[in-house]
Amino acid sequence: MSEHGKTPVTVLGLGAMGTALVEALLAAGHPVTAWNRTASRAEGVAAKGATVAPTVAEALAANEIVIACLLDYDSVHEVLDPVAAGLAGRQLINLTNGTPGQAREMGAWAEELGAEYLDGGIMAVPPMIGTPASFIFYSGSGTVFGRARTALDTFGGVNYLGVDPGLAPLYDLALLSGMYGNFIGVIQAYTLVGSAGVKASELTPLLRGWMEAMLSSFLDRAAEQIDSGDYGTDVVSNIAMQAAAFPNLAKAAAEQGVSAELLAPLQSLMDRRVAAGHGAEDLVGVIEILKK
Amino acid sequence: MSEHGKTPVTVLGLGAMGTALVEALLAAGHPVTAWNRTASRAEGVAAKGATVAPTVAEALAANEIVIACLLDYDSVHEVLDPVAAGLAGRQLINLTNGTPGQAREMGAWAEELGAEYLDGGIMAVPPMIGTPASFIFYSGSGTVFGRARTALDTFGGVNYLGVDPGLAPLYDLALLSGMYGNFIGVIQAYTLVGSAGVKASELTPLLRGWMEAMLSSFLDRAAEQIDSGDYGTDVVSNIAMQAAAFPNLAKAAAEQGVSAELLAPLQSLMDRRVAAGHGAEDLVGVIEILKK
Repeated sequence: MSEHGKTPVTVLGLGAMGTALVEALLAAGHPVTAWNRTASRAEGVAAKGATVAPTVAEALAANEIVIACLLDYDSVHEVLDPVAAGLAGRQLINLTNGTPGQAREMGAWAEELGAEYLDGGIMAVPPMIGTPASFIFYSGSGTVFGRARTALDTFGGVNYLGVDPGLAPLYDLALLSGMYGNFIGVIQAYTLVGSAGVKASELTPLLRGWMEAMLSSFLDRAAEQIDSGDYGTDVVSNIAMQAAAFPNLAKAAAEQGVSAELLAPLQSLMDRRVAAGHGAEDLVGVIEILKK
Repeated sequence: MSEHGKTPVTVLGLGAMGTALVEALLAAGHPVTAWNRTASRAEGVAAKGATVAPTVAEALAANEIVIACLLDYDSVHEVLDPVAAGLAGRQLINLTNGTPGQAREMGAWAEELGAEYLDGGIMAVPPMIGTPASFIFYSGSGTVFGRARTALDTFGGVNYLGVDPGLAPLYDLALLSGMYGNFIGVIQAYTLVGSAGVKASELTPLLRGWMEAMLSSFLDRAAEQIDSGDYGTDVVSNIAMQAAAFPNLAKAAAEQGVSAELLAPLQSLMDRRVAAGHGAEDLVGVIEILKK
Protein backbone atom coordinates (compact mmCIF):
# COMPACT_ATOMS: atom_id res chain seq x y z
CA MET A 1 0.00 0.00 0.00
CA SER A 2 1.19 3.52 -0.74
CA GLU A 3 0.94 6.22 1.86
CA HIS A 4 -2.53 7.12 0.56
CA GLY A 5 -3.79 3.54 0.80
CA LYS A 6 -3.66 3.02 -2.96
CA THR A 7 -1.95 -0.20 -4.09
CA PRO A 8 1.19 0.51 -6.11
CA VAL A 9 1.30 -1.47 -9.35
CA THR A 10 3.85 -2.29 -12.01
CA VAL A 11 2.58 -2.52 -15.58
CA LEU A 12 4.62 -4.26 -18.29
CA GLY A 13 3.64 -3.28 -21.81
CA LEU A 14 2.39 0.06 -23.08
CA GLY A 15 0.48 -0.80 -26.19
CA ALA A 16 -2.96 0.76 -26.54
CA MET A 17 -4.41 -1.56 -23.88
CA GLY A 18 -1.47 -1.34 -21.43
CA THR A 19 -1.53 2.43 -21.70
CA ALA A 20 -5.27 2.50 -20.99
CA LEU A 21 -4.71 0.34 -17.89
CA VAL A 22 -1.96 2.65 -16.61
CA GLU A 23 -4.11 5.71 -17.18
CA ALA A 24 -7.03 4.17 -15.28
CA LEU A 25 -4.73 3.32 -12.35
CA LEU A 26 -3.18 6.81 -12.32
CA ALA A 27 -6.59 8.47 -12.54
CA ALA A 28 -7.63 6.60 -9.39
CA GLY A 29 -4.45 7.61 -7.58
CA HIS A 30 -2.53 4.31 -7.72
CA PRO A 31 1.25 4.76 -7.95
CA VAL A 32 2.33 3.08 -11.20
CA THR A 33 5.72 1.90 -12.38
CA ALA A 34 5.59 1.25 -16.12
CA TRP A 35 7.93 -0.50 -18.51
CA ASN A 36 7.85 -0.85 -22.26
CA ARG A 37 10.42 -2.33 -24.64
CA THR A 38 10.31 0.81 -26.76
CA ALA A 39 10.92 3.40 -24.05
CA SER A 40 9.58 6.35 -26.05
CA ARG A 41 6.09 4.89 -25.75
CA ALA A 42 6.24 5.54 -22.00
CA GLU A 43 6.44 9.33 -22.36
CA GLY A 44 2.67 9.82 -22.32
CA VAL A 45 2.06 7.94 -19.07
CA ALA A 46 5.21 9.49 -17.54
CA ALA A 47 3.69 12.93 -18.14
CA LYS A 48 0.60 11.73 -16.30
CA GLY A 49 2.59 10.65 -13.26
CA ALA A 50 3.84 7.11 -13.90
CA THR A 51 7.38 6.19 -12.91
CA VAL A 52 9.13 4.73 -15.93
CA ALA A 53 11.42 1.79 -15.19
CA PRO A 54 14.37 1.55 -17.59
CA THR A 55 14.60 -2.24 -17.28
CA VAL A 56 12.16 -5.09 -16.66
CA ALA A 57 14.20 -6.08 -13.60
CA GLU A 58 13.70 -2.65 -12.06
CA ALA A 59 10.00 -2.70 -12.92
CA LEU A 60 9.66 -6.08 -11.16
CA ALA A 61 11.61 -4.88 -8.15
CA ALA A 62 9.46 -1.77 -7.75
CA ASN A 63 6.14 -3.41 -6.72
CA GLU A 64 4.70 -6.72 -5.54
CA ILE A 65 1.79 -6.49 -7.95
CA VAL A 66 2.91 -6.81 -11.56
CA ILE A 67 0.44 -6.59 -14.45
CA ALA A 68 1.58 -7.86 -17.84
CA CYS A 69 -0.26 -6.70 -20.96
CA LEU A 70 1.83 -7.71 -23.95
CA LEU A 71 1.24 -8.92 -27.50
CA ASP A 72 0.94 -12.61 -26.65
CA TYR A 73 2.16 -15.23 -24.17
CA ASP A 74 5.39 -15.75 -26.08
CA SER A 75 6.13 -12.06 -25.55
CA VAL A 76 5.47 -12.44 -21.81
CA HIS A 77 8.02 -15.25 -21.65
CA GLU A 78 10.53 -13.28 -23.76
CA VAL A 79 10.23 -10.36 -21.34
CA LEU A 80 10.16 -12.31 -18.06
CA ASP A 81 12.38 -15.36 -18.70
CA PRO A 82 15.65 -13.40 -18.45
CA VAL A 83 14.59 -11.89 -15.08
CA ALA A 84 12.70 -14.93 -13.78
CA ALA A 85 14.42 -14.83 -10.39
CA GLY A 86 12.84 -11.42 -9.83
CA LEU A 87 9.37 -13.00 -9.83
CA ALA A 88 9.80 -14.55 -6.37
CA GLY A 89 7.32 -12.99 -3.99
CA ARG A 90 5.49 -11.23 -6.78
CA GLN A 91 1.80 -11.33 -7.69
CA LEU A 92 1.77 -11.65 -11.45
CA ILE A 93 -1.47 -10.62 -13.17
CA ASN A 94 -1.37 -11.50 -16.85
CA LEU A 95 -3.92 -9.65 -18.97
CA THR A 96 -2.34 -10.70 -22.26
CA ASN A 97 -4.59 -12.40 -24.86
CA GLY A 98 -4.10 -16.16 -25.02
CA THR A 99 -5.57 -19.60 -24.62
CA PRO A 100 -6.53 -21.61 -21.51
CA GLY A 101 -3.53 -23.88 -22.05
CA GLN A 102 -1.15 -20.95 -22.24
CA ALA A 103 -2.60 -19.48 -19.05
CA ARG A 104 -2.25 -22.79 -17.20
CA GLU A 105 1.36 -23.17 -18.38
CA MET A 106 2.24 -19.66 -17.30
CA GLY A 107 0.51 -20.09 -13.94
CA ALA A 108 2.52 -23.24 -13.21
CA TRP A 109 5.74 -21.57 -14.38
CA ALA A 110 5.17 -18.49 -12.20
CA GLU A 111 4.36 -20.58 -9.14
CA GLU A 112 7.55 -22.59 -9.55
CA LEU A 113 9.43 -19.30 -9.43
CA GLY A 114 7.72 -18.33 -6.19
CA ALA A 115 5.15 -15.97 -7.67
CA GLU A 116 1.38 -16.11 -7.32
CA TYR A 117 -0.49 -15.99 -10.63
CA LEU A 118 -3.77 -14.49 -11.77
CA ASP A 119 -4.87 -14.57 -15.39
CA GLY A 120 -7.31 -12.15 -16.96
CA GLY A 121 -9.38 -11.79 -20.11
CA ILE A 122 -10.29 -8.21 -20.97
CA MET A 123 -13.78 -7.85 -22.47
CA ALA A 124 -13.25 -4.33 -23.79
CA VAL A 125 -11.32 -2.26 -26.29
CA PRO A 126 -8.87 0.28 -24.85
CA PRO A 127 -11.18 3.35 -24.89
CA MET A 128 -13.66 1.41 -22.72
CA ILE A 129 -11.15 0.76 -19.90
CA GLY A 130 -12.21 2.59 -16.75
CA THR A 131 -15.82 2.86 -17.90
CA PRO A 132 -18.78 0.76 -16.70
CA ALA A 133 -18.96 -0.83 -20.19
CA SER A 134 -15.65 -2.64 -19.54
CA PHE A 135 -15.24 -5.86 -17.62
CA ILE A 136 -12.49 -8.38 -17.10
CA PHE A 137 -12.63 -12.10 -16.35
CA TYR A 138 -10.08 -13.26 -13.77
CA SER A 139 -9.01 -16.74 -12.74
CA GLY A 140 -6.11 -18.22 -10.81
CA SER A 141 -4.98 -17.11 -7.36
CA GLY A 142 -7.89 -15.78 -5.32
CA THR A 143 -5.33 -14.22 -2.98
CA VAL A 144 -3.91 -12.09 -5.76
CA PHE A 145 -7.39 -11.14 -6.89
CA GLY A 146 -8.25 -10.00 -3.36
CA ARG A 147 -5.05 -8.03 -2.81
CA ALA A 148 -5.14 -6.32 -6.18
CA ARG A 149 -8.88 -5.70 -6.11
CA THR A 150 -8.88 -1.92 -5.61
CA ALA A 151 -6.43 -1.58 -8.49
CA LEU A 152 -8.39 -3.98 -10.72
CA ASP A 153 -11.62 -2.15 -9.98
CA THR A 154 -10.25 0.92 -11.75
CA PHE A 155 -10.42 -0.94 -15.09
CA GLY A 156 -14.18 -1.60 -14.92
CA GLY A 157 -16.23 -4.59 -13.79
CA VAL A 158 -14.55 -7.73 -12.46
CA ASN A 159 -15.65 -11.38 -12.61
CA TYR A 160 -13.51 -13.92 -10.72
CA LEU A 161 -14.13 -17.40 -12.09
CA GLY A 162 -12.05 -19.72 -9.88
CA VAL A 163 -8.57 -21.08 -9.30
CA ASP A 164 -7.98 -22.62 -12.76
CA PRO A 165 -6.01 -19.92 -14.62
CA GLY A 166 -7.44 -21.27 -17.89
CA LEU A 167 -10.98 -20.19 -17.07
CA ALA A 168 -10.51 -16.47 -17.76
CA PRO A 169 -9.25 -16.95 -21.34
CA LEU A 170 -11.82 -19.71 -21.86
CA TYR A 171 -14.74 -17.45 -20.89
CA ASP A 172 -13.16 -14.62 -22.85
CA LEU A 173 -13.00 -16.77 -25.98
CA ALA A 174 -16.50 -18.15 -25.37
CA LEU A 175 -17.95 -14.65 -25.34
CA LEU A 176 -15.88 -13.68 -28.38
CA SER A 177 -17.29 -16.74 -30.16
CA GLY A 178 -20.76 -15.47 -29.36
CA MET A 179 -19.87 -12.07 -30.75
CA TYR A 180 -18.39 -13.52 -33.94
CA GLY A 181 -21.52 -15.62 -34.38
CA ASN A 182 -23.58 -12.43 -34.18
CA PHE A 183 -21.23 -10.95 -36.72
CA ILE A 184 -21.62 -13.89 -39.11
CA GLY A 185 -25.40 -13.65 -38.96
CA VAL A 186 -25.55 -9.89 -39.41
CA ILE A 187 -23.01 -9.75 -42.23
CA GLN A 188 -24.72 -12.60 -44.11
CA ALA A 189 -28.12 -10.91 -43.74
CA TYR A 190 -26.81 -7.59 -45.05
CA THR A 191 -25.03 -9.40 -47.89
CA LEU A 192 -28.23 -11.10 -49.03
CA VAL A 193 -30.48 -8.04 -49.07
CA GLY A 194 -27.67 -5.91 -50.48
CA SER A 195 -27.56 -8.23 -53.49
CA ALA A 196 -31.06 -6.96 -54.38
CA GLY A 197 -30.05 -3.32 -53.93
CA VAL A 198 -31.60 -3.00 -50.47
CA LYS A 199 -29.72 -0.65 -48.14
CA ALA A 200 -28.37 -2.25 -44.97
CA SER A 201 -29.94 0.49 -42.85
CA GLU A 202 -33.34 -0.45 -44.30
CA LEU A 203 -33.00 -3.98 -42.95
CA THR A 204 -31.53 -2.98 -39.58
CA PRO A 205 -34.76 -2.47 -37.55
CA LEU A 206 -36.23 -5.75 -38.81
CA LEU A 207 -32.99 -7.64 -38.29
CA ARG A 208 -32.51 -6.20 -34.80
CA GLY A 209 -35.99 -7.15 -33.61
CA TRP A 210 -35.76 -10.61 -35.10
CA MET A 211 -32.23 -11.46 -33.92
CA GLU A 212 -32.86 -10.13 -30.41
CA ALA A 213 -36.01 -12.22 -30.08
CA MET A 214 -34.34 -15.35 -31.49
CA LEU A 215 -31.22 -14.89 -29.36
CA SER A 216 -33.17 -14.48 -26.17
CA SER A 217 -35.38 -17.53 -26.61
CA PHE A 218 -32.55 -19.62 -28.00
CA LEU A 219 -30.13 -19.00 -25.11
CA ASP A 220 -32.48 -20.48 -22.54
CA ARG A 221 -33.70 -23.35 -24.70
CA ALA A 222 -30.16 -24.34 -25.67
CA ALA A 223 -28.78 -24.13 -22.13
CA GLU A 224 -31.58 -26.32 -20.79
CA GLN A 225 -31.07 -28.94 -23.48
CA ILE A 226 -27.29 -28.95 -23.20
CA ASP A 227 -27.31 -29.27 -19.41
CA SER A 228 -29.90 -32.07 -19.49
CA GLY A 229 -28.47 -33.81 -22.57
CA ASP A 230 -32.06 -34.10 -23.80
CA TYR A 231 -32.50 -32.48 -27.22
CA GLY A 232 -36.21 -33.27 -27.42
CA THR A 233 -38.14 -35.42 -29.86
CA ASP A 234 -41.38 -33.45 -30.07
CA VAL A 235 -39.89 -30.16 -31.23
CA VAL A 236 -41.88 -27.98 -33.62
CA SER A 237 -39.06 -27.42 -36.07
CA ASN A 238 -36.68 -30.34 -35.88
CA ILE A 239 -33.16 -30.55 -37.25
CA ALA A 240 -34.19 -32.74 -40.21
CA MET A 241 -36.62 -30.04 -41.36
CA GLN A 242 -34.03 -27.34 -40.86
CA ALA A 243 -31.30 -29.31 -42.62
CA ALA A 244 -33.67 -29.82 -45.57
CA ALA A 245 -34.49 -26.09 -45.84
CA PHE A 246 -30.95 -24.86 -45.16
CA PRO A 247 -29.67 -25.33 -48.75
CA ASN A 248 -32.02 -22.48 -49.76
CA LEU A 249 -29.56 -20.13 -48.05
CA ALA A 250 -26.72 -21.21 -50.31
CA LYS A 251 -28.99 -21.43 -53.38
CA ALA A 252 -30.34 -17.93 -52.82
CA ALA A 253 -26.82 -16.56 -52.37
CA ALA A 254 -25.70 -18.26 -55.59
CA GLU A 255 -28.71 -16.90 -57.49
CA GLN A 256 -27.94 -13.42 -56.21
CA GLY A 257 -24.22 -13.73 -57.00
CA VAL A 258 -22.98 -13.54 -53.42
CA SER A 259 -21.27 -16.00 -51.08
CA ALA A 260 -22.84 -18.00 -48.25
CA GLU A 261 -19.52 -19.55 -47.19
CA LEU A 262 -19.91 -18.36 -43.58
CA LEU A 263 -22.83 -20.73 -43.05
CA ALA A 264 -21.38 -23.78 -44.80
CA PRO A 265 -20.03 -25.54 -41.69
CA LEU A 266 -23.45 -25.39 -40.05
CA GLN A 267 -25.02 -27.23 -43.00
CA SER A 268 -22.36 -29.90 -42.64
CA LEU A 269 -22.96 -30.23 -38.89
CA MET A 270 -26.72 -30.49 -39.38
CA ASP A 271 -26.36 -33.14 -42.07
CA ARG A 272 -24.05 -35.22 -39.88
CA ARG A 273 -26.42 -34.99 -36.92
CA VAL A 274 -29.38 -36.08 -39.07
CA ALA A 275 -27.33 -38.91 -40.57
CA ALA A 276 -26.54 -40.08 -37.04
CA GLY A 277 -30.25 -40.63 -36.45
CA HIS A 278 -31.16 -37.47 -34.54
CA GLY A 279 -33.32 -35.84 -37.23
CA ALA A 280 -36.39 -35.58 -34.99
CA GLU A 281 -34.49 -33.69 -32.30
CA ASP A 282 -33.68 -30.01 -31.85
CA LEU A 283 -30.87 -28.30 -33.77
CA VAL A 284 -29.07 -27.73 -30.47
CA GLY A 285 -27.99 -31.38 -30.54
CA VAL A 286 -25.23 -30.53 -33.05
CA ILE A 287 -23.19 -29.56 -29.99
CA GLU A 288 -22.63 -33.29 -29.45
CA ILE A 289 -20.59 -33.34 -32.67
CA LEU A 290 -18.59 -30.27 -31.64
CA LYS A 291 -17.79 -31.99 -28.33
CA LYS A 292 -16.40 -34.92 -30.37
CA MET B 1 -66.44 -11.72 -50.26
CA SER B 2 -68.70 -14.11 -48.38
CA GLU B 3 -72.05 -13.00 -47.10
CA HIS B 4 -70.41 -11.96 -43.82
CA GLY B 5 -67.75 -9.84 -45.56
CA LYS B 6 -65.00 -12.38 -44.90
CA THR B 7 -62.85 -13.26 -47.91
CA PRO B 8 -63.19 -16.92 -48.90
CA VAL B 9 -59.83 -18.59 -49.39
CA THR B 10 -58.52 -21.83 -50.85
CA VAL B 11 -55.52 -23.42 -49.13
CA LEU B 12 -53.41 -26.05 -50.88
CA GLY B 13 -51.32 -28.17 -48.51
CA LEU B 14 -52.17 -29.30 -45.01
CA GLY B 15 -48.82 -29.95 -43.43
CA ALA B 16 -48.24 -28.45 -40.00
CA MET B 17 -47.96 -24.93 -41.45
CA GLY B 18 -50.85 -25.20 -43.93
CA THR B 19 -53.07 -26.56 -41.19
CA ALA B 20 -52.14 -23.66 -38.90
CA LEU B 21 -53.02 -21.19 -41.69
CA VAL B 22 -56.41 -22.81 -42.25
CA GLU B 23 -57.17 -22.79 -38.55
CA ALA B 24 -56.31 -19.09 -38.26
CA LEU B 25 -58.59 -18.28 -41.21
CA LEU B 26 -61.45 -20.38 -39.82
CA ALA B 27 -61.05 -18.84 -36.36
CA ALA B 28 -61.51 -15.40 -37.91
CA GLY B 29 -64.61 -16.52 -39.83
CA HIS B 30 -63.14 -16.83 -43.34
CA PRO B 31 -64.72 -19.58 -45.44
CA VAL B 32 -61.93 -21.99 -46.35
CA THR B 33 -61.68 -24.65 -49.04
CA ALA B 34 -58.77 -26.95 -48.32
CA TRP B 35 -56.97 -29.56 -50.36
CA ASN B 36 -54.24 -32.00 -49.45
CA ARG B 37 -52.73 -34.83 -51.46
CA THR B 38 -53.31 -37.23 -48.56
CA ALA B 39 -56.99 -36.55 -47.94
CA SER B 40 -57.05 -38.02 -44.42
CA ARG B 41 -54.96 -35.07 -43.24
CA ALA B 42 -57.91 -32.80 -44.00
CA GLU B 43 -60.17 -34.36 -41.40
CA GLY B 44 -59.04 -32.04 -38.61
CA VAL B 45 -59.78 -28.82 -40.49
CA ALA B 46 -62.99 -30.28 -41.90
CA ALA B 47 -64.19 -30.80 -38.34
CA LYS B 48 -63.44 -27.14 -37.70
CA GLY B 49 -65.53 -25.99 -40.65
CA ALA B 50 -63.32 -26.12 -43.74
CA THR B 51 -64.75 -27.44 -46.98
CA VAL B 52 -62.50 -30.22 -48.24
CA ALA B 53 -61.98 -30.27 -52.03
CA PRO B 54 -61.40 -33.76 -53.42
CA THR B 55 -59.25 -32.46 -56.31
CA VAL B 56 -56.90 -29.56 -56.89
CA ALA B 57 -59.07 -28.45 -59.82
CA GLU B 58 -62.09 -28.16 -57.54
CA ALA B 59 -60.05 -26.34 -54.91
CA LEU B 60 -58.89 -23.84 -57.54
CA ALA B 61 -62.41 -23.38 -58.88
CA ALA B 62 -63.83 -22.69 -55.43
CA ASN B 63 -62.21 -19.31 -54.70
CA GLU B 64 -60.29 -16.51 -56.40
CA ILE B 65 -57.69 -16.35 -53.63
CA VAL B 66 -55.54 -19.48 -53.51
CA ILE B 67 -52.83 -19.94 -50.89
CA ALA B 68 -50.20 -22.62 -51.52
CA CYS B 69 -48.17 -23.95 -48.60
CA LEU B 70 -46.36 -27.06 -49.78
CA LEU B 71 -43.01 -28.75 -49.20
CA ASP B 72 -41.08 -26.80 -51.83
CA TYR B 73 -41.51 -25.03 -55.18
CA ASP B 74 -41.17 -28.29 -57.10
CA SER B 75 -44.17 -29.57 -55.17
CA VAL B 76 -46.14 -26.44 -56.11
CA HIS B 77 -45.44 -27.10 -59.78
CA GLU B 78 -46.29 -30.80 -59.42
CA VAL B 79 -49.64 -29.87 -57.92
CA LEU B 80 -50.52 -26.93 -60.19
CA ASP B 81 -49.00 -27.83 -63.57
CA PRO B 82 -51.71 -30.42 -64.42
CA VAL B 83 -54.47 -27.89 -63.68
CA ALA B 84 -52.66 -24.79 -64.95
CA ALA B 85 -55.64 -23.57 -67.00
CA GLY B 86 -57.59 -23.24 -63.75
CA LEU B 87 -55.20 -20.50 -62.57
CA ALA B 88 -56.65 -17.90 -64.95
CA GLY B 89 -58.28 -15.13 -62.95
CA ARG B 90 -56.86 -16.44 -59.69
CA GLN B 91 -54.75 -14.64 -57.08
CA LEU B 92 -52.06 -17.12 -56.17
CA ILE B 93 -50.32 -16.54 -52.83
CA ASN B 94 -47.37 -18.87 -52.43
CA LEU B 95 -46.16 -19.29 -48.84
CA THR B 96 -43.93 -22.26 -49.63
CA ASN B 97 -40.25 -22.04 -48.58
CA GLY B 98 -37.92 -21.28 -51.47
CA THR B 99 -35.40 -18.95 -53.02
CA PRO B 100 -35.78 -15.54 -54.70
CA GLY B 101 -35.13 -17.13 -58.09
CA GLN B 102 -37.81 -19.74 -57.57
CA ALA B 103 -40.29 -17.06 -56.52
CA ARG B 104 -39.52 -14.96 -59.61
CA GLU B 105 -39.89 -17.99 -61.89
CA MET B 106 -43.22 -18.93 -60.35
CA GLY B 107 -44.46 -15.34 -60.49
CA ALA B 108 -43.71 -15.15 -64.22
CA TRP B 109 -45.28 -18.57 -64.81
CA ALA B 110 -48.47 -17.67 -62.95
CA GLU B 111 -48.81 -14.36 -64.78
CA GLU B 112 -48.50 -16.08 -68.13
CA LEU B 113 -51.44 -18.24 -67.12
CA GLY B 114 -53.51 -15.19 -66.27
CA ALA B 115 -53.06 -15.33 -62.50
CA GLU B 116 -51.75 -12.60 -60.24
CA TYR B 117 -48.93 -13.71 -57.96
CA LEU B 118 -47.86 -12.84 -54.43
CA ASP B 119 -44.99 -14.61 -52.70
CA GLY B 120 -44.56 -14.88 -48.95
CA GLY B 121 -41.91 -15.85 -46.42
CA ILE B 122 -43.31 -16.99 -43.09
CA MET B 123 -41.21 -15.90 -40.09
CA ALA B 124 -42.80 -18.27 -37.62
CA VAL B 125 -43.24 -21.90 -36.70
CA PRO B 126 -46.78 -23.30 -36.98
CA PRO B 127 -47.82 -22.80 -33.32
CA MET B 128 -47.03 -19.08 -33.67
CA ILE B 129 -49.45 -18.54 -36.58
CA GLY B 130 -52.29 -16.25 -35.55
CA THR B 131 -50.31 -14.80 -32.65
CA PRO B 132 -48.60 -11.39 -32.55
CA ALA B 133 -45.20 -13.19 -32.50
CA SER B 134 -45.75 -14.31 -36.11
CA PHE B 135 -45.11 -12.22 -39.19
CA ILE B 136 -44.90 -12.84 -42.89
CA PHE B 137 -42.94 -11.05 -45.61
CA TYR B 138 -44.89 -10.54 -48.85
CA SER B 139 -43.73 -9.40 -52.26
CA GLY B 140 -45.18 -9.48 -55.75
CA SER B 141 -48.61 -8.19 -56.75
CA GLY B 142 -49.68 -5.30 -54.53
CA THR B 143 -53.21 -5.82 -55.81
CA VAL B 144 -53.32 -9.36 -54.44
CA PHE B 145 -51.84 -8.19 -51.15
CA GLY B 146 -54.55 -5.54 -50.83
CA ARG B 147 -57.43 -7.86 -51.75
CA ALA B 148 -56.30 -10.68 -49.48
CA ARG B 149 -55.27 -8.39 -46.63
CA THR B 150 -58.04 -9.25 -44.16
CA ALA B 151 -57.30 -12.95 -44.66
CA LEU B 152 -53.52 -12.46 -44.39
CA ASP B 153 -53.94 -10.43 -41.22
CA THR B 154 -55.29 -13.53 -39.48
CA PHE B 155 -51.83 -15.15 -39.66
CA GLY B 156 -50.03 -12.39 -37.72
CA GLY B 157 -48.05 -9.33 -38.78
CA VAL B 158 -47.57 -8.50 -42.47
CA ASN B 159 -44.70 -6.75 -44.23
CA TYR B 160 -45.14 -6.00 -47.96
CA LEU B 161 -41.73 -5.44 -49.58
CA GLY B 162 -42.52 -4.50 -53.19
CA VAL B 163 -43.37 -5.93 -56.59
CA ASP B 164 -40.33 -8.22 -57.04
CA PRO B 165 -41.61 -11.65 -55.90
CA GLY B 166 -38.03 -12.56 -54.93
CA LEU B 167 -37.90 -10.04 -52.11
CA ALA B 168 -40.03 -12.01 -49.64
CA PRO B 169 -37.85 -15.15 -49.75
CA LEU B 170 -34.74 -12.96 -49.81
CA TYR B 171 -35.70 -11.12 -46.61
CA ASP B 172 -36.85 -14.41 -45.11
CA LEU B 173 -33.46 -16.00 -45.78
CA ALA B 174 -31.61 -12.87 -44.62
CA LEU B 175 -33.33 -13.03 -41.25
CA LEU B 176 -32.77 -16.78 -41.06
CA SER B 177 -29.06 -16.13 -41.73
CA GLY B 178 -29.06 -13.73 -38.79
CA MET B 179 -30.70 -16.36 -36.62
CA TYR B 180 -28.25 -19.05 -37.66
CA GLY B 181 -25.38 -16.68 -36.92
CA ASN B 182 -26.78 -16.22 -33.42
CA PHE B 183 -26.97 -19.98 -33.20
CA ILE B 184 -23.35 -20.45 -34.27
CA GLY B 185 -22.13 -17.98 -31.66
CA VAL B 186 -24.21 -19.38 -28.83
CA ILE B 187 -23.44 -23.02 -29.57
CA GLN B 188 -19.69 -22.32 -29.87
CA ALA B 189 -19.70 -20.41 -26.57
CA TYR B 190 -21.50 -23.23 -24.75
CA THR B 191 -19.15 -25.77 -26.35
CA LEU B 192 -16.06 -23.95 -25.08
CA VAL B 193 -17.15 -23.50 -21.46
CA GLY B 194 -18.69 -26.97 -21.42
CA SER B 195 -15.24 -28.39 -22.21
CA ALA B 196 -14.14 -27.15 -18.78
CA GLY B 197 -17.16 -28.64 -17.05
CA VAL B 198 -19.05 -25.35 -16.83
CA LYS B 199 -22.82 -25.68 -17.12
CA ALA B 200 -24.40 -23.87 -20.04
CA SER B 201 -26.94 -22.25 -17.72
CA GLU B 202 -24.06 -20.76 -15.73
CA LEU B 203 -22.81 -18.93 -18.80
CA THR B 204 -26.26 -17.86 -20.04
CA PRO B 205 -26.66 -14.52 -18.18
CA LEU B 206 -23.14 -13.41 -19.11
CA LEU B 207 -23.52 -14.54 -22.70
CA ARG B 208 -26.93 -12.89 -23.04
CA GLY B 209 -25.73 -9.50 -21.76
CA TRP B 210 -22.61 -9.60 -23.88
CA MET B 211 -24.23 -10.78 -27.13
CA GLU B 212 -27.15 -8.37 -26.83
CA ALA B 213 -24.78 -5.43 -26.31
CA MET B 214 -22.48 -6.51 -29.15
CA LEU B 215 -25.40 -7.18 -31.52
CA SER B 216 -27.00 -3.84 -30.89
CA SER B 217 -23.89 -1.74 -31.42
CA PHE B 218 -22.73 -3.87 -34.32
CA LEU B 219 -25.97 -3.63 -36.33
CA ASP B 220 -25.78 0.15 -36.56
CA ARG B 221 -22.03 0.35 -37.12
CA ALA B 222 -22.13 -2.30 -39.86
CA ALA B 223 -25.12 -0.79 -41.66
CA GLU B 224 -23.50 2.66 -41.73
CA GLN B 225 -20.24 1.29 -43.08
CA ILE B 226 -21.89 -0.95 -45.67
CA ASP B 227 -24.16 1.80 -46.98
CA SER B 228 -21.30 4.30 -47.20
CA GLY B 229 -18.70 1.80 -48.43
CA ASP B 230 -16.30 3.37 -45.90
CA TYR B 231 -14.93 0.76 -43.49
CA GLY B 232 -12.85 3.26 -41.55
CA THR B 233 -9.12 3.49 -41.02
CA ASP B 234 -9.01 4.81 -37.47
CA VAL B 235 -10.93 1.98 -35.83
CA VAL B 236 -9.99 0.93 -32.31
CA SER B 237 -9.83 -2.78 -33.06
CA ASN B 238 -9.01 -3.24 -36.72
CA ILE B 239 -9.33 -6.39 -38.77
CA ALA B 240 -5.57 -7.08 -38.74
CA MET B 241 -5.60 -7.19 -34.93
CA GLN B 242 -8.70 -9.36 -34.91
CA ALA B 243 -7.32 -11.72 -37.55
CA ALA B 244 -4.13 -12.07 -35.49
CA ALA B 245 -6.04 -12.91 -32.28
CA PHE B 246 -8.65 -15.12 -33.96
CA PRO B 247 -6.49 -18.30 -34.07
CA ASN B 248 -6.76 -18.39 -30.25
CA LEU B 249 -10.37 -19.53 -30.73
CA ALA B 250 -9.27 -22.59 -32.70
CA LYS B 251 -6.24 -23.19 -30.44
CA ALA B 252 -8.34 -23.05 -27.29
CA ALA B 253 -10.88 -25.44 -28.80
CA ALA B 254 -8.10 -27.86 -29.79
CA GLU B 255 -6.57 -27.68 -26.29
CA GLN B 256 -9.97 -28.39 -24.77
CA GLY B 257 -10.68 -31.24 -27.18
CA VAL B 258 -13.64 -29.60 -28.94
CA SER B 259 -14.25 -28.29 -32.44
CA ALA B 260 -14.20 -24.68 -33.64
CA GLU B 261 -15.18 -25.60 -37.19
CA LEU B 262 -18.16 -23.23 -37.18
CA LEU B 263 -15.86 -20.21 -37.05
CA ALA B 264 -13.28 -21.39 -39.61
CA PRO B 265 -14.72 -19.54 -42.64
CA LEU B 266 -14.57 -16.24 -40.76
CA GLN B 267 -10.84 -16.69 -40.13
CA SER B 268 -10.38 -17.31 -43.84
CA LEU B 269 -12.40 -14.22 -44.78
CA MET B 270 -10.46 -12.04 -42.34
CA ASP B 271 -7.11 -13.29 -43.61
CA ARG B 272 -8.11 -12.61 -47.23
CA ARG B 273 -9.28 -9.10 -46.37
CA VAL B 274 -6.03 -8.33 -44.55
CA ALA B 275 -3.99 -9.80 -47.43
CA ALA B 276 -5.88 -7.49 -49.80
CA GLY B 277 -4.46 -4.50 -47.91
CA HIS B 278 -7.42 -3.61 -45.69
CA GLY B 279 -5.86 -4.58 -42.34
CA ALA B 280 -6.31 -1.12 -40.81
CA GLU B 281 -10.05 -1.09 -41.52
CA ASP B 282 -13.03 -2.48 -39.65
CA LEU B 283 -13.96 -6.18 -39.74
CA VAL B 284 -17.20 -5.23 -41.52
CA GLY B 285 -15.19 -4.81 -44.73
CA VAL B 286 -15.18 -8.60 -45.21
CA ILE B 287 -18.60 -8.10 -46.79
CA GLU B 288 -16.76 -6.89 -49.90
CA ILE B 289 -15.40 -10.43 -50.32
CA LEU B 290 -18.84 -11.99 -49.82
CA LYS B 291 -20.22 -9.67 -52.51
CA LYS B 292 -17.48 -11.05 -54.82
